[in-house]
Amino acid sequence: MSQTIGIGIMGLGTVGYGAATILQRNRDVLSIRTKCDLELVAVLEREKETAQKHLEEIGLSAGLVTDDIDAFLNTEGLDIVVEVIGGTTVAKTFIEKAIAKGKSIVTANKDLMAIHGKELLNAATEQGVDLRFEASVAGGIPIIDVLKTDLIGNHFDSIMGIVNGTTNYILTRMYHESIDFDDVLKEAQRLGYAESDPTADIGGWDAARKVAILASIAYNSRVTLDDVYVEGIDKITAEDIAAARKLGYVIKLLGIAKEDNGAIEARVHPVMIPTDHPLAAVNDTFNAVFVDGDVVGQTMFYGRGAGDLPTGSAIVGDICAVARDIVFGDLGQQGCTCYLNKAIKTQNDYVSKFFIRMQVEDSPGVLSSIAKIFGENGVSIASVVQERCKRGGAAAASLIVVTHKVQEGKFLKAKQQLESSEAVHGIDNIIRVEDEA
Amino acid sequence: MSQTIGIGIMGLGTVGYGAATILQRNRDVLSIRTKCDLELVAVLEREKETAQKHLEEIGLSAGLVTDDIDAFLNTEGLDIVVEVIGGTTVAKTFIEKAIAKGKSIVTANKDLMAIHGKELLNAATEQGVDLRFEASVAGGIPIIDVLKTDLIGNHFDSIMGIVNGTTNYILTRMYHESIDFDDVLKEAQRLGYAESDPTADIGGWDAARKVAILASIAYNSRVTLDDVYVEGIDKITAEDIAAARKLGYVIKLLGIAKEDNGAIEARVHPVMIPTDHPLAAVNDTFNAVFVDGDVVGQTMFYGRGAGDLPTGSAIVGDICAVARDIVFGDLGQQGCTCYLNKAIKTQNDYVSKFFIRMQVEDSPGVLSSIAKIFGENGVSIASVVQERCKRGGAAAASLIVVTHKVQEGKFLKAKQQLESSEAVHGIDNIIRVEDEA
Repeated sequence: MSQTIGIGIMGLGTVGYGAATILQRNRDVLSIRTKCDLELVAVLEREKETAQKHLEEIGLSAGLVTDDIDAFLNTEGLDIVVEVIGGTTVAKTFIEKAIAKGKSIVTANKDLMAIHGKELLNAATEQGVDLRFEASVAGGIPIIDVLKTDLIGNHFDSIMGIVNGTTNYILTRMYHESIDFDDVLKEAQRLGYAESDPTADIGGWDAARKVAILASIAYNSRVTLDDVYVEGIDKITAEDIAAARKLGYVIKLLGIAKEDNGAIEARVHPVMIPTDHPLAAVNDTFNAVFVDGDVVGQTMFYGRGAGDLPTGSAIVGDICAVARDIVFGDLGQQGCTCYLNKAIKTQNDYVSKFFIRMQVEDSPGVLSSIAKIFGENGVSIASVVQERCKRGGAAAASLIVVTHKVQEGKFLKAKQQLESSEAVHGIDNIIRVEDEA
Repeated sequence: MSQTIGIGIMGLGTVGYGAATILQRNRDVLSIRTKCDLELVAVLEREKETAQKHLEEIGLSAGLVTDDIDAFLNTEGLDIVVEVIGGTTVAKTFIEKAIAKGKSIVTANKDLMAIHGKELLNAATEQGVDLRFEASVAGGIPIIDVLKTDLIGNHFDSIMGIVNGTTNYILTRMYHESIDFDDVLKEAQRLGYAESDPTADIGGWDAARKVAILASIAYNSRVTLDDVYVEGIDKITAEDIAAARKLGYVIKLLGIAKEDNGAIEARVHPVMIPTDHPLAAVNDTFNAVFVDGDVVGQTMFYGRGAGDLPTGSAIVGDICAVARDIVFGDLGQQGCTCYLNKAIKTQNDYVSKFFIRMQVEDSPGVLSSIAKIFGENGVSIASVVQERCKRGGAAAASLIVVTHKVQEGKFLKAKQQLESSEAVHGIDNIIRVEDEA
């Protein structure tokens, strides 16, 4: 007789329903592979009736649903609690209650893990239970487990991820069809790829939570949301994308984590990458995480970053890992992996190449005065493209400068001086460039 | 005090040296992450002096080296044996001896696992030790662990891998520079990307071993090298690649595993895939495995498939997993995962689209007679391109036909009839096409 492991799901929204569907639909492979019987024993959901209907649709009993957290946690045979409520308030309280009751946790909650990860992982360790969160970053892509186990022998030079499907969809459409940001956003909202309030995605905040989690794992030191520098894609124009294309780049919203001299940097912002970079081919709502390890070299992990079944796949993977720990008596062994306490770099210390597109006066000496500003601030220029353009009556030119690698603090000083220079009518956009192998 | 885990390496060639280097160089992260002290305690190598020199180069004691298997296995504190001798004779005997002595095994040996995997895994289970082999497929890409654990909730619709760096390098050069096969092969040999006897790579046999291993894991049923259908890349010409390009395809040597109605197919051959397929961007000596799971959807895992450090990264990942099992008392729990006994499909039952390039007589009625042969055998034509060409004196044409999906048995009958048809001067090449999302 195989051991029965009882699963409870808190929140039967899209992802919770996906996880329930997989447990039911793929019961055959799960029981063969885990040698356990993974049984859904309870569902916690405020909207009871809808949840009951959904369960019946996939052949499960409506009787599993309760809207009472205590009744849920007291369900007989409950071993593993899947938290897919989302947010940082109710979800946190309920997870804490479940841990206190000796239940292991599987969560998809990036908001919670990016802010309260340490606290919750420590609580789990104290209670001798597991807390796993593979689904919180990049949906079906098993990046957390890969960093923690398979690539354990590596110092990570950098991690660069396309970890937000909405923004990647928008940037892909803008690149392939030369459409403006606002128009693509509207269509993305119509298709359900973007929320009606898209701030969290467009502004880079969703990606920032995932970067905080990835950086914490890769560098074994806690990085929280507050430590992440964030810029969104709302200022990217069709002109930027056209300029990028001319230079052999595409623009992606990347979450970047790096370590240098024992200090971590974690940031999210638009980046120009070469068209032959593996991340450049990651299109539409797909996600991918590009990991550069000192021994494994360049690796990339690609897949669906969201959706009921892909995210459910990660949740079920975590459920099986916890089930294994239950069977082997290993619960509570893998707690928080942030064993160190590293410094966090701030913006001025980042090192990047920069693309800067500006409108300048079209007259002799202008380029030299701009070059002088860069030079005096220690910013070395890699390439310059100047094109005449008509702006109102005055002779004007569009100037694109790409710099060599430079400390961001130095670049920002140059930028300030450019803004107050008479030769510069306006800076259209500044985008970081990552083009080194 | 952290627990010391003793590692022994059998064979200090490229990969063995890579693993030793990582254990030494990245000792800091390894001890932080595993909370163990992973110590190299013995090296088995016939060429003792070279091995001693190599160990000293990375700060290890020459005294670790022995050329005697019994002395090696009797080393005090030896817990984990890394086998990187290669081949199926000595390596097998030594692994069996080590298992009998109660040592856990980490191996990079695809030849051995593709033929004797079941036997060795069962021996390990009987002795209560671990046997792990992540490094045997696609070097640093953790595809075995990902299939076994993270994607455990999936039925795998298909697995398609670029798992041989040599052939991918050759095909990449042929595509980007329109060079002939023979010339690229010679250069690959000069650069060390191809062996002086390149048969195993070029002929698809190296990839076939990896496909046997991946199929066994994905479908929980043993697939051995003999079960794999194999075609190499030696017949691919610059003309094929030019024709593929015109049709929007690139040609890759793919290892493919599929399951249909409880029967497994495992094959290696050149395939035309669309230029926007994620595998199409996998160039040079890089490897990638594209996994289509029923719940996770399309995922891809990309990285270096060979080399001392990438392969060493996988070995060290396995060492740490075994170390965890030692610390937690879980040794010998994960044995052979081939719990089922599924049928293996043979060539006639495969279903593919086909590209066929042939020389035909340039006269009225020829196309119709060729189309008739296809039609009578149940092969439906998707597209036809006919071009005039000069071949000797007679009027001749080059005809390219791409079929719809068809059972390979039917296609082969049509091919046979084409070969004996007077209208067909010769069939230049036949290449399978995979272009469905």
